Amino acid sequence: MNTAFQPYDPQFESRVRASFARQAAMATIGAQMAEVGPGRVVVELPFSSHITQQHGFVHGGIVAAALDSACGYAASTLMAADAGVLTIEFKVNLMAPAQGRLFRMVGEVLKPGRTISVTEARAYALGDDGREKLVASMNATMMVITGRDGIQH
Amino acid sequence: MNTAFQPYDPQFESRVRASFARQAAMATIGAQMAEVGPGRVVVELPFSSHITQQHGFVHGGIVAAALDSACGYAASTLMAADAGVLTIEFKVNLMAPAQGRLFRMVGEVLKPGRTISVTEARAYALGDDGREKLVASMNATMMVITGRDGIQH
Amino acid sequence: MNTAFQPYDPQFESRVRASFARQAAMATIGAQMAEVGPGRVVVELPFSSHITQQHGFVHGGIVAAALDSACGYAASTLMAADAGVLTIEFKVNLMAPAQGRLFRMVGEVLKPGRTISVTEARAYALGDDGREKLVASMNATMMVITGRDGIQH
Amino acid sequence: MNTAFQPYDPQFESRVRASFARQAAMATIGAQMAEVGPGRVVVELPFSSHITQQHGFVHGGIVAAALDSACGYAASTLMAADAGVLTIEFKVNLMAPAQGRLFRMVGEVLKPGRTISVTEARAYALGDDGREKLVASMNATMMVITGRDGIQH
Repeated sequence: MNTAFQPYDPQFESRVRASFARQAAMATIGAQMAEVGPGRVVVELPFSSHITQQHGFVHGGIVAAALDSACGYAASTLMAADAGVLTIEFKVNLMAPAQGRLFRMVGEVLKPGRTISVTEARAYALGDDGREKLVASMNATMMVITGRDGIQH
Repeated sequence: MNTAFQPYDPQFESRVRASFARQAAMATIGAQMAEVGPGRVVVELPFSSHITQQHGFVHGGIVAAALDSACGYAASTLMAADAGVLTIEFKVNLMAPAQGRLFRMVGEVLKPGRTISVTEARAYALGDDGREKLVASMNATMMVITGRDGIQH
Repeated sequence: MNTAFQPYDPQFESRVRASFARQAAMATIGAQMAEVGPGRVVVELPFSSHITQQHGFVHGGIVAAALDSACGYAASTLMAADAGVLTIEFKVNLMAPAQGRLFRMVGEVLKPGRTISVTEARAYALGDDGREKLVASMNATMMVITGRDGIQH
Repeated sequence: MNTAFQPYDPQFESRVRASFARQAAMATIGAQMAEVGPGRVVVELPFSSHITQQHGFVHGGIVAAALDSACGYAASTLMAADAGVLTIEFKVNLMAPAQGRLFRMVGEVLKPGRTISVTEARAYALGDDGREKLVASMNATMMVITGRDGIQH
């Protein structure tokens, strides 16, 4: 993926981290913003029994929620300081059970745009042996919003 | 959608409710199994500040997690008693901000199958005025698993 | 699905039919615009050996192409006379082999919007016995474009 | 993407090329199999006015059809000689109008599997200046079928 993006907003990292910190849902599931770069962020989600499904793995929908935030903030890194981002749609493939002690959600911008940005993310499970395994992928379409509906970014 | 499905397992409702009750992630976000019928379930998610995103709406990923459970259990109602269900993939369209006091996720089977079942779900927001608004839709592919990997259903 | 839509443009049917007639790709695969209503169109695709895959069924991608046109023109029926429509993304589930003598692609608007419209479509195969079978479903996001890039609608 | 796949069938290239040659739909749209490697194929589609939409670009559905074949045959390269592949579902993002003299569809396996393989593809447009532009991406789920339904591979 292209990582040679030039951000408009030099303060993108602090802006993205502050916005992520306002996502109560991410705190609830235990997700943290680990890395923020131009067009790329990494969200980490430690395993915890409160986010599991009936088989004891992390719920696929929770994996998707963390991937969605990774995609949205990857897009946000390339936007203007006063722009917001809304997820229009996303698709996730769950390729293996979400087993492991930690999950790394790597979100990247595939195609930035004035109105629409297309993003992708991968979820990797880290096992006790320190090895990474690809467990899910996402493709998400983000819409840029500016000064609409009194939405705080 | 076709709701004239004949379940194999006469105990499907108690089985599905028991499995949903083992999804710790659903308890964490506050989702409940409201209705269970052949090929159709309704999951309810009350608004709560602990599942919001940065604008104060329910996080799209949390909406997706509840829709995913609705799709999976809709498929499960038509399966044999000893079969499990895994989400292969899903796609969600977020059509309006998830604002409201309660969200109803209606999951239905579009095409049941021996190996693969295709399901759909809609998320409706109920406002203080009691009116319903469509806020999201999902399309999900489920795989039937039987006696594999020591998975408890 | 909601079919109680009010079109802005009273000439929507002739506009949509004229635009479809300019889609050379639809003529190439043999697709025709059968029905045009507010928020809903039906595209018909007769079976023909020139659109098959290696098993002799209609190629899933060709089914998708006809479904995409059905979704796009369903959205177009509700748009202003000078607006164009672009497919941002679509997802298709191929639920059964595309066998039959004729395929009916029913496209409908799920959520119209100023900028973004969400649409759905179903592909039904008609067999020699006259019975319909659901073979594919699509979910597509359309963007409204106005006077951009010299695009003819 | 991982390209270090070991094919089971040493004759995968000739098998894949022979199967592609039986896809009448690909001949109809003008697509050719350009490259076949383990877990990766390239399909080329020259611009032609018979595959366009109303704006004179290649129809997004035709782009999707070629991408679908690229995904399916990428999966097929890693399968046993007697296995067939069926597309369960795919999602495509159309990121720019399909303008250019030639389109290269690069399909790759993201996660191979006994029953389910997850694949991805990109469509690049080549302009008259020889430069490549990313115009579409696909994510597709493929199912392996063996000796079922009298299907010829």
